[in-house]
Order: sequence, then C-alpha cells, then structure tokens
Amino acid sequence: MKQVSLARRAARLSPTMPASSHDHAIPFDSGHGFPALFPDLTAAAEKALTTYRHETLQYGVRPGLPELREWIAGAMNMDGAKVTPGEIFVTNGAKQGIELACRLLLDEGDSIVVTAPTYFTSIPIFRSFDVDFIEVGQDSEGLDTDELAATLERLKRDGRKTPKFIYNVPDFHNPTGVTMSRRRREALLKLASRHGMYVVEDSPYRKVRFEGSSEPSLKALDRSNNVLHLGTFSKLIAPGLRIGWVAGAPELLARMIQLKADGGSSPFVQRIIVEWCKAGNLAAHTENVQGTYRLHRDHMVAALRRDLPEVSMQVPEGGYYVWLTLPHGVDADELAKHAAEEGVTVLAGSKFYARVDRGNDLTPKRHMRLAYTHSSPEQIDEGIRRLAAALRRCGISPGDAPMERAVASHPTIA
Amino acid sequence: MKQVSLARRAARLSPTMPASSHDHAIPFDSGHGFPALFPDLTAAAEKALTTYRHETLQYGVRPGLPELREWIAGAMNMDGAKVTPGEIFVTNGAKQGIELACRLLLDEGDSIVVTAPTYFTSIPIFRSFDVDFIEVGQDSEGLDTDELAATLERLKRDGRKTPKFIYNVPDFHNPTGVTMSRRRREALLKLASRHGMYVVEDSPYRKVRFEGSSEPSLKALDRSNNVLHLGTFSKLIAPGLRIGWVAGAPELLARMIQLKADGGSSPFVQRIIVEWCKAGNLAAHTENVQGTYRLHRDHMVAALRRDLPEVSMQVPEGGYYVWLTLPHGVDADELAKHAAEEGVTVLAGSKFYARVDRGNDLTPKRHMRLAYTHSSPEQIDEGIRRLAAALRRCGISPGDAPMERAVASHPTIA
Repeated sequence: MKQVSLARRAARLSPTMPASSHDHAIPFDSGHGFPALFPDLTAAAEKALTTYRHETLQYGVRPGLPELREWIAGAMNMDGAKVTPGEIFVTNGAKQGIELACRLLLDEGDSIVVTAPTYFTSIPIFRSFDVDFIEVGQDSEGLDTDELAATLERLKRDGRKTPKFIYNVPDFHNPTGVTMSRRRREALLKLASRHGMYVVEDSPYRKVRFEGSSEPSLKALDRSNNVLHLGTFSKLIAPGLRIGWVAGAPELLARMIQLKADGGSSPFVQRIIVEWCKAGNLAAHTENVQGTYRLHRDHMVAALRRDLPEVSMQVPEGGYYVWLTLPHGVDADELAKHAAEEGVTVLAGSKFYARVDRGNDLTPKRHMRLAYTHSSPEQIDEGIRRLAAALRRCGISPGDAPMERAVASHPTIA
Repeated sequence: MKQVSLARRAARLSPTMPASSHDHAIPFDSGHGFPALFPDLTAAAEKALTTYRHETLQYGVRPGLPELREWIAGAMNMDGAKVTPGEIFVTNGAKQGIELACRLLLDEGDSIVVTAPTYFTSIPIFRSFDVDFIEVGQDSEGLDTDELAATLERLKRDGRKTPKFIYNVPDFHNPTGVTMSRRRREALLKLASRHGMYVVEDSPYRKVRFEGSSEPSLKALDRSNNVLHLGTFSKLIAPGLRIGWVAGAPELLARMIQLKADGGSSPFVQRIIVEWCKAGNLAAHTENVQGTYRLHRDHMVAALRRDLPEVSMQVPEGGYYVWLTLPHGVDADELAKHAAEEGVTVLAGSKFYARVDRGNDLTPKRHMRLAYTHSSPEQIDEGIRRLAAALRRCGISPGDAPMERAVASHPTIA
C-alpha cells in the first residue's frame, strides 16, 4: 500500500484531548454543556416522528428544512442582521461550517488569518487543507486590526498572496473569552473588503452572555456580503443534536451546499429543533443557560482568586471559558500533565496556537484554558483545588509570584 | 472578491436532480424510501431522550457510540466478515464515508477506478477532489475484471500512476442493479492487492434482496485489509436518520476519524438506532422492506413489459432500481425532459457516467434509471403509462423496435 500520503496527512493532524489517569477527573478541558441544563425534547421528538414522519424519516433537502431556515433567519434578524431564509444553510454543527468554508474557499498555497490564540479544534481542520497561518494578536478589544492592517500591507509589499479569509470568534472568543469592540469589528470588515478577503465569523457563544451588552455581529455589519457567519444549537440547546448553520451570500451558499456531500443534515433532528423553538421554549431556556453558567463562572473565578492568586485572568462576560496567564517559570504543558494526575483535565495554551514555528516565543507555554460549563459548582471548587495542588508541584507556592497585569497582545486583565 | 477558484469549483460540480414541471410528478428519479415502510421509532427516541439523556444530548465520541459500533460489527460478522468494533467508524450516512475516503486517500493528480455507469451522486464528490476517472465496463457478473487488469497493465506500461482506489457498488449496483459474482469479487481483490490500490465497497442495498443468494461482501473476502466498506441505515431503516458507517483497517480509520471534522455523528440518533435494533425490530422490518420492494419491482417490471415493450432491462434481484436500455434512436436526455412534462421524473443515463470526454460513445444516451421504491404500486402503473407517452413523443410507437438483448459492457438481459 502507498502510505506516503497517509503519513503526511497524519502528521498534519493534531492530537486529541488530553486524558487524565485519574478515575473521576473533573473536566475543565471540554466545551461540553452542563448535563442538568439539557432541555426536555421528548414532546418535540414524538411530534417529529408522528405528525412529520414522512418528512423526518425521508431524505431532506440539502440546504436544510425550510421552516428551520426561516426560524434561524428570523432569530438572526432580531439580532440586527438582515438575512433571508435563502441565505441560511443548515450544517452538522458549526464545525462542519468551518470545514465547508475551507473546501469552498481554499486553494493550494493559500493562507488564512487567525488570532493567536485561536479555537483549537479549528486548527487541525485548517491544517488538513495545508494552509499557511498568518497569526494576529489580540487585546481586550479583540483581534488587533492595526496589526492586521500592517501585516496585510507587508504581504502586499512583499508580493505575497493575500490571505483567503480571516477566521475569528468575535463573541466570547475561544479560548480568551474576549468580545471584539464595535470599532474593531468595523475596522476588520473594512480591511476584508479592501483586500478582497472573506471573513468566517464563528459564533457559538453569542447568546451565552451573563452581563454587559452585545456588539452587532460581523454579519449584521457586513455591507460587502463577504462574511460567512457560523451559528449552532450546540451551546444553547444540546451539542448531541449536531445542528448548526452558515449564513452568507446565496452564491457562496449554493456552492457550499453542493460540497456538503453527506446527503443533508438529518431532517428528523431539524424538525425537533423547529418544534421545540416554535413551542416558545427557547427564551426561558436561554435565561436558564445564562443564569446557570454565570453561577459557574462566578464560582470558578472566586475559586481561582482564592486558591491560585498567582494566576491572572480576564473575567469573561459570557461564553464557556476563562483564559489564564500563569506565573513566570510555569510551563502550561507541564502543569496540564500534573493537573491530570491530580484529577482535573485542562487544556494547555500551546494547543491554541496555529503556527508551530514560534522561535523563542514562549507565550503559549504561559496560558491555560478552563471551561466552567461542564462541571457543577462543587466540582469547580474541587477542580481548582486540584489545579492548585498541581501548580505547587511545578514549584510555585501561593503568594510566590505577584498577580500579573495585561501582557501586550494577550488579554490578561485580572 | 477573488472568484476564480469558486468558478472553477462550480464547474466541477454536477447539476442536481431534474425537476418536473408537473404538479404531482411521480418520482422514479429518487433513492427515497417508501413512506409507509418507515418504522415507528417513538419508543426508542423517548428512551434516548430520557434514560440516555446525558449521553445523547452531549457531544459524542468521534468514532461513534461504542454500543452501535459493536452492533454493526456483530451484524457484519453474521454476514461473513471478521471485524471488531474498533474497525467500525460511524458516519453521517454512507455518503460521508465516500467523502472521507477521498479526503483520506486522494492526492493531487490521482486517479480512481469507477464502473461505467456508476452511482451518480458519487461523481461530483470525486470530481470535487479533482481526480481523473478510469472507467471500467460491466456485464451481468458486475465489474469487468479482465478489462480492469488490462487497463492497469497498460497504465503501468505507459509509466502512469496506479489509480488510488476502485470504487464500486457490488450488491445491486447503482444504477444497473447487477450483483458481482464471487469469481469477479476475488479477481477484483487480487488486482487491488497486486497493484497496491484500495477498494471502496459502497454497500447500501445488500440486505434489500428479494430472491437468490448473496455473494460474500468484498470486506468478507478482504485478506489484505485494503477494503473500506461503506454501510448505512438509510435503505433499511430511514434515510432521515443520516447514520452510516465505514468498516476498515484501524490505521486507516484513525486518520479518517480525525478528518471527520463535524464533531461526530449525533449520539442521539445513534442511540435511537441501537435501542430500536436491540429491541429486536430489525429482522421483521427487513422482511417487510424486502417484501414491499419485491412487490414494487414486480409491478414496475410488469408495467414496463406491458407499456414499453421496446425497452429492455435486466430484472434486478434486489436493490432500488431498474436500468433500462432504450430503443435505437431514442435520446435518454430528451426522453427525461418529455417524461417530466408528462409528470414522471426519471434519471437519464448520462448522469451516471463519470468521464465527460466520451468522443463518439453514445452509450449514456441509451440508458435510464428508474427507482421503484418511493412510489406505490398504483403510482408505478401510472408513472410507466406517462413514461410510455413520453417515449411516443420521441417518435417511438409500441412495437416499432424489437426488444434488445445484452449489449457488451452493459447488462441488458430482458
């Protein structure tokens, strides 16, 4: 068998989640939902399998159930966008949207812009398309558009190809939790239009806001119709449904729909979502999700301040994660290993940086992402205690190092 | 916006299903199931959403639900294969298996072997990976392995690259309905091993057998572990579930699983299938499917003999389709258009041929695929009457042309 290309492909793929050797590890590493929050979908499923059985058990239409597309367009328009159901395309979660955007837009030798750090699951997807990564920093206003402008000018001067698209999570960024300011959003879109780039707006957490007010989505500000907006029901209803969507220009969607070669997303699961949403369940459920995860976040922030005062962070206004900056001298990869042995799984910062040729830049080693969503408040307390024990095994005792303040390009406001 | 690559991609994609201008068109064009056959899944769904809610609404594991993989391995082993659950990987239907096989195996400049004709939905998937097609003919024993052997030798002599894999539907081939003989299966696997090629065995119809006995699947005969077997629950339970699988060597699956970037197939739908199958429903349901579609086939064959005696066919022993050979002088594309106007949708043969550079070969114009599954016996009668009316509009009257016999490379035994 010819294994050359397989070996090359394997090398491009990243390792999966870290496993803990501990029997009852507390999972701060996962983007899972809190189990007690999952809604009761039995009535909607019953209806989907009886009233709608001829629709739900048959092949569906590739772009998605018309009623669901209509519902999604309505929800997006309530949130400031101006999209028609024809500009919505149903996918198997937002992740499939990332892959289809790559299949649609990328050609050999292309580059894309990502933040440093960026969503770690997107990295192996991009890498499997052999793209070059152009990393841009972030601060507390999100993606640094000045740095991006300078980078694009430099690429132009050097006669290099313009990146094909900018990938970003502008609301409650994964992993940093930062929300992009309005000013930066507009600057980003302006740059994209000027340089002829697409923008892939990955927006799973937008509705998981605990406080403060939302900025308009990039799609809502999109005047050039070059934003592909990725949405999902995973973070609000349940990840196990595997239903998300892409909102974008019809001519882009038409090609994406042809590239979605899996026979369409399940019409059965789509119908369950339509029925459950149309029954008016979503508003109260969203409040429940926001209230519960706010509590989880508060618990985790309090526990971190109590047990790991030497660690700094920016408290997120929503989303699933806190992004920690570790004291000097602590290696996050090493800490993650110790943590797993202590019985808490975390994701070391190094997993969130797309470029591997970092030279002497040790930034990834100084960060760690913790998810507060999956675990109960009690588990959060215990998990942070275990993480503190792991940190002590790295040679740091409480009070050793002073609390850190913001580091350029990486939001770390305590 | 840079549209060059988009335009290029668009050109590679095939058109979708033909549409009828008729309000109540009878659908002989689709691989849909007969609606009355869909099973009652309400009890399984209820259980999945209550007893198993923490599993089904959460992210699942990428390779698929362990219990489902175990069940699938057991079913395949009852059918003569020797696979472990670790050699099963759950996908969104068999179609996603085709795409993942391409992503796993294909490199720039690669070619693959397909039958002429071949499954029409696979063609745009392959084409989207820019492959070259090596077409091989078929007869009533299936893929012509002598022709394949000669083609491979010629490629070798000419110093050209060996095709990366052979794609085939060995059981109730789509569109011809032919099942490969044991002799040909063994010859095919021998050729694959000798030349270092993979075999992608697409097997959605295997259990939809009305009479005669099965040959061992290619996977069951696979001694070199180079067969990727694609299975699905679409044709036996319901297409709307969008659950299929790949069975193959663990080292291939491991890479495929990493390339399945959509967050895994829905654990909710997988659990419904496990519960429904474990409750012992499948055996009786399979008999029901076989009996119902046998009746549909008999109805269609009788109607064709009655109303279109000038058309020839090989009566399939199972599966979803009959493949017609039209009288000389009839253009299938033209006939399909007339048929749509008469109120019956059919797929012209030209959709099933991967190579577009056919020179003077008019074979694709002489064939047509009819599905007997989706429509009721009454609709089948009416649909064939409409097709006969369409044929008359092509200038053919009943009795004009004699019944045809087998044409080399294309099974047309009446």
